[in-house]
Amino acid sequence: MKAVRVHGYKQAPSVDEIAQPDLQDHDDVIVRVGGSGVCRTDLHIVDGWFADIMPVEPPFTLGHETAGWVEAVGRNVTNVAVGDPVIVHPLRTCGVCWGCRHGEDMYCSVSTFPGVNTDGGYAEYLRTSGRSLLVLPEDVAPADVAPHADAGLTAYRAVRKAVAILQPGQTIAVLGVGGLGHIGIQLLRAMTPARIVAIDPSPTGQELARELGADVVLGGDEAIEGTLHATGGLGADVVLDFVGENGTPGVAIEIVRQGGTYLVVGYGGELDIPTMALVLKEVTIAGNLVGNYGDFSELMALVGDGKVKLHTSTYPLEAAAQALDDLDNGRVKGRAVLIPNAR
Amino acid sequence: MKAVRVHGYKQAPSVDEIAQPDLQDHDDVIVRVGGSGVCRTDLHIVDGWFADIMPVEPPFTLGHETAGWVEAVGRNVTNVAVGDPVIVHPLRTCGVCWGCRHGEDMYCSVSTFPGVNTDGGYAEYLRTSGRSLLVLPEDVAPADVAPHADAGLTAYRAVRKAVAILQPGQTIAVLGVGGLGHIGIQLLRAMTPARIVAIDPSPTGQELARELGADVVLGGDEAIEGTLHATGGLGADVVLDFVGENGTPGVAIEIVRQGGTYLVVGYGGELDIPTMALVLKEVTIAGNLVGNYGDFSELMALVGDGKVKLHTSTYPLEAAAQALDDLDNGRVKGRAVLIPNAR
Amino acid sequence: MKAVRVHGYKQAPSVDEIAQPDLQDHDDVIVRVGGSGVCRTDLHIVDGWFADIMPVEPPFTLGHETAGWVEAVGRNVTNVAVGDPVIVHPLRTCGVCWGCRHGEDMYCSVSTFPGVNTDGGYAEYLRTSGRSLLVLPEDVAPADVAPHADAGLTAYRAVRKAVAILQPGQTIAVLGVGGLGHIGIQLLRAMTPARIVAIDPSPTGQELARELGADVVLGGDEAIEGTLHATGGLGADVVLDFVGENGTPGVAIEIVRQGGTYLVVGYGGELDIPTMALVLKEVTIAGNLVGNYGDFSELMALVGDGKVKLHTSTYPLEAAAQALDDLDNGRVKGRAVLIPNAR
Amino acid sequence: MKAVRVHGYKQAPSVDEIAQPDLQDHDDVIVRVGGSGVCRTDLHIVDGWFADIMPVEPPFTLGHETAGWVEAVGRNVTNVAVGDPVIVHPLRTCGVCWGCRHGEDMYCSVSTFPGVNTDGGYAEYLRTSGRSLLVLPEDVAPADVAPHADAGLTAYRAVRKAVAILQPGQTIAVLGVGGLGHIGIQLLRAMTPARIVAIDPSPTGQELARELGADVVLGGDEAIEGTLHATGGLGADVVLDFVGENGTPGVAIEIVRQGGTYLVVGYGGELDIPTMALVLKEVTIAGNLVGNYGDFSELMALVGDGKVKLHTSTYPLEAAAQALDDLDNGRVKGRAVLIPNAR
Repeated sequence: MKAVRVHGYKQAPSVDEIAQPDLQDHDDVIVRVGGSGVCRTDLHIVDGWFADIMPVEPPFTLGHETAGWVEAVGRNVTNVAVGDPVIVHPLRTCGVCWGCRHGEDMYCSVSTFPGVNTDGGYAEYLRTSGRSLLVLPEDVAPADVAPHADAGLTAYRAVRKAVAILQPGQTIAVLGVGGLGHIGIQLLRAMTPARIVAIDPSPTGQELARELGADVVLGGDEAIEGTLHATGGLGADVVLDFVGENGTPGVAIEIVRQGGTYLVVGYGGELDIPTMALVLKEVTIAGNLVGNYGDFSELMALVGDGKVKLHTSTYPLEAAAQALDDLDNGRVKGRAVLIPNAR
Repeated sequence: MKAVRVHGYKQAPSVDEIAQPDLQDHDDVIVRVGGSGVCRTDLHIVDGWFADIMPVEPPFTLGHETAGWVEAVGRNVTNVAVGDPVIVHPLRTCGVCWGCRHGEDMYCSVSTFPGVNTDGGYAEYLRTSGRSLLVLPEDVAPADVAPHADAGLTAYRAVRKAVAILQPGQTIAVLGVGGLGHIGIQLLRAMTPARIVAIDPSPTGQELARELGADVVLGGDEAIEGTLHATGGLGADVVLDFVGENGTPGVAIEIVRQGGTYLVVGYGGELDIPTMALVLKEVTIAGNLVGNYGDFSELMALVGDGKVKLHTSTYPLEAAAQALDDLDNGRVKGRAVLIPNAR
Repeated sequence: MKAVRVHGYKQAPSVDEIAQPDLQDHDDVIVRVGGSGVCRTDLHIVDGWFADIMPVEPPFTLGHETAGWVEAVGRNVTNVAVGDPVIVHPLRTCGVCWGCRHGEDMYCSVSTFPGVNTDGGYAEYLRTSGRSLLVLPEDVAPADVAPHADAGLTAYRAVRKAVAILQPGQTIAVLGVGGLGHIGIQLLRAMTPARIVAIDPSPTGQELARELGADVVLGGDEAIEGTLHATGGLGADVVLDFVGENGTPGVAIEIVRQGGTYLVVGYGGELDIPTMALVLKEVTIAGNLVGNYGDFSELMALVGDGKVKLHTSTYPLEAAAQALDDLDNGRVKGRAVLIPNAR
Repeated sequence: MKAVRVHGYKQAPSVDEIAQPDLQDHDDVIVRVGGSGVCRTDLHIVDGWFADIMPVEPPFTLGHETAGWVEAVGRNVTNVAVGDPVIVHPLRTCGVCWGCRHGEDMYCSVSTFPGVNTDGGYAEYLRTSGRSLLVLPEDVAPADVAPHADAGLTAYRAVRKAVAILQPGQTIAVLGVGGLGHIGIQLLRAMTPARIVAIDPSPTGQELARELGADVVLGGDEAIEGTLHATGGLGADVVLDFVGENGTPGVAIEIVRQGGTYLVVGYGGELDIPTMALVLKEVTIAGNLVGNYGDFSELMALVGDGKVKLHTSTYPLEAAAQALDDLDNGRVKGRAVLIPNAR
């Protein structure tokens, strides 16, 4: 089968012909890939950012946003059947460690991360386990939702924390209306009646925020003054940062209210804050990793109910290099998705 | 009456003879002061740290850790009566703003802070309101508990958050076993069966931690390795930082487990963390201000039940300058308390 | 001024001419009444149901759903000003007892309940306190929202508990689509993407539920089978019972899922359940009183944002007897509201 | 091997010689049984109470409180190794259904319950899965802790809910100081500084409660008056009912405070309450099933730390009938434990 593989860091991945994966364990499932999301993290992987954090011996297949159809199942698999349309949780987990037993799959002490430290979904077929699979709601096509496996799931986890805090009449400020941000605003709109202040430096992002129903839309320069004005000078009850660099942490601390919460999703920059400011403002700052399986199933319920829509641009599997290059140069509208199998 | 007053920043406060406060409002209460805690914040106030944050026109009376007996009450006061032994919440609050209505007195939008931006408790009498007063449990003397009004209450608020997270078998690391830390460890011991790792550079602090029942006691150099060893390499579920300077924020981020919580109480230093670390570790960082009235009443219930004991050194009111100097030079054993009225 | 007063139980209240209330305390506020909701509880009060629970010496003025404009304020009142349009929380509370300090106004140990055990809002003017008043959002008229002071607030409190439990993809079953139920469904629609199964025996109630956006609408006979069918046989994650009599508690226990929650708002009937069923199903059952001030302000934020609309039928104050009779005989469309002052 | 088996309801189980279980699945584990708790539920099983709820074709082996040593493991088992001392969670679960994914093993949609609907631990060997096993803390012997697998775990789950509610200065009333109650009081003493009122009709139970550190101990007749007296007339913040019959639900509703919580663990009786009382008191009532795996590991951490001790009386496996008879007739001191293998 065809697979897009990394042979060395800082060099373009190549389309290779390799053996199709087979069932090796009673928990294994083979997925015929119908869509594979192209994520900014893939660029970072190629650049070697994760080489030390999650080491892997190249070559390996990229792709951690995978959806498709079940091709084959091991004898112990009970939650999916051959032919089911499925989406794949980004981690393959053990089910018995502390993290797994508490429902926090991302903390699994022996997980693998296909596309990062083992073969992923930029391929015609993917080997995973039953635990990682979620059957798609009716009328939902794999290629249309693949990016939810990481982008959507990460946005969902942070939004879920925000929603648990926000009460009617309160305000959330969203920093960044791009790939994750446009999902985040839809999720907020579906899950809370709180007011949404969306902040993005680009007119495109601002326009998108308006379309998705943000109550107030601000450019980067207006972020601090505009948010304070929209909240009667108090600041936002929650700040949700999909950027995490280019100064957004400093802005976030300025615009969060006393006793408020700053949720960090994007990364790349630095948070620098005097402990005295942390204490006097009594602010809570929380990092957000990709979501767990419960988060994943809740997100897919919203997708099935038509409450979140992804904007995607599709590419054949062989055009992966083009898709990555387009992403790197800001030429992708919505999320790029590779299509290894049409159906 | 006598009162210890600040006449200008960076100059020693003086013992003045001023008029005794009287009832001016139906909610007012006059407290005959039985004990007034001497706090490191008082040194910062004299040095002018709060001149911009909470402005006040000198002269004003110091003292924000006050306990005593009710001397007189306005006609609308229902929760205390003349003669009651009481402790005074550090803020005088309105009762009707958003913060007050939600039980978070510290967020009162029109509060005053006696001893910081209005006359405080380094005096024979203090004017406050019924809302700020809590009747002491039986057999508890004002002079023995005055420092709980700030030091104890601040430690309690952070410990309460920690206890809500910690489950049996989990671990909390406590940074700093001084004025607040020694209260914090007692509170933890009373409120959770989780394991306590206490970290302090001084042998005195380490010895105190052992006496109070910490499960593991470490010096500053052993903090990281020792905590990881005590938690099977995972890190502490909660880190409670009573220092907040001299590098503790960096240590805290190292020793907190993935998905864990870092509670910041002490201040003076800086927290610098890449957003990528926040995200990958999915850590939550929360500042902690002094507690609300609910926290205060819970703390006093524990004091009444004999579960928290303060070590105090007493001084006459006239010796306030000596007490502040002793504190500044590390010569106070436990907390210093001024005694304006013996009973 | 005119006031509608109870002179004895089980006899019609009369329209009396009595003295207009004046300011007696520094916290007092006089409200010129713009709308006074007519509630089923008023019928129960006239019938003497509350004579033992909240005793009062007749005559007294009915009315616990009051909105209007501030006519006069005592000198300590800071949160409202003369001329403000306001809605009145049903209880007058002290602000310093355990309940008040924890934000749960309904648990105030010395509260009065105007319209139940002291003079209420079926009158041209009402004496209350600043603590009980909430300034209305712009463009919201007192007469249009008065019933929210009890009906809306009670529905809100229960819905808020439900929303804190419900996740996307989960299901709430609502029993009763009448006065409270039609508010409840609107609140749910605004606050959660969970699926709503609405159950009501009357075609009118069913039709209303459909208009308000319930996902599944069932008649009384279909309640059990229909809910189980709509939830894949599992049962509803939350059951919200606005009826509380005529067998709904038994139905609720049947249709709630294992580990689910049954929220009781309506009353009049009996809940009978073997402890073995409670244990094996591990169900949680929670009664719901009228909401606190925080709930009230959140509800009003939703009203101001246009997310909840009341259907009302207005009557002059003098027609109170007619309004009560219409209510008793099912002739009121929406909620009846008396109009003591047009503006 | 020897096993104690039910051949028909309402007839004494017999000691049979049957084949030793072997590994059949990659997840299977064989446990050499070191202790098997004898529980009141076993009497109910023999009497056929569960014949309809969890049907099984006799003969089957009793025993759902099992601990021992790992004898053999399937190839996929990663969390235990041959020789490990282990305790067995009462349910064998799938790991992938909604309940399992959310950490609530008891809600597993395809679980089996050894000793109830498949062969249990009244035997020399038990077949289970890795998911059901927890390695014991050092120095903890299987026979000393086996009853924790059900009795301790059930008490723990309810206590954990209570502890999450209780604040310092609040009060919990415990109904019943027998098998579960004496564990419950120890857990409360370890996990909360709240005050404990223990209620039991027997002088033995009362004496035990005093030894374990209850703050107030009452006989059955004094329950209502005594609890109200101990709480200044307010009632207990939480009532924890280990009896659930003989009138305790009615007592619980009387002694729980407004806004309080009634946790039901014991069963056999009926809860009858007017919905009006539920609403006016705004009480929450929650059933409690056996705990999940997270609960189990937390309980075992407390056991390992020496904070909970079981009183046990041991019997050889062959004396199971005697143990059951002793239990049925109130002749067991503490919990009865069968010892199929001494080590």
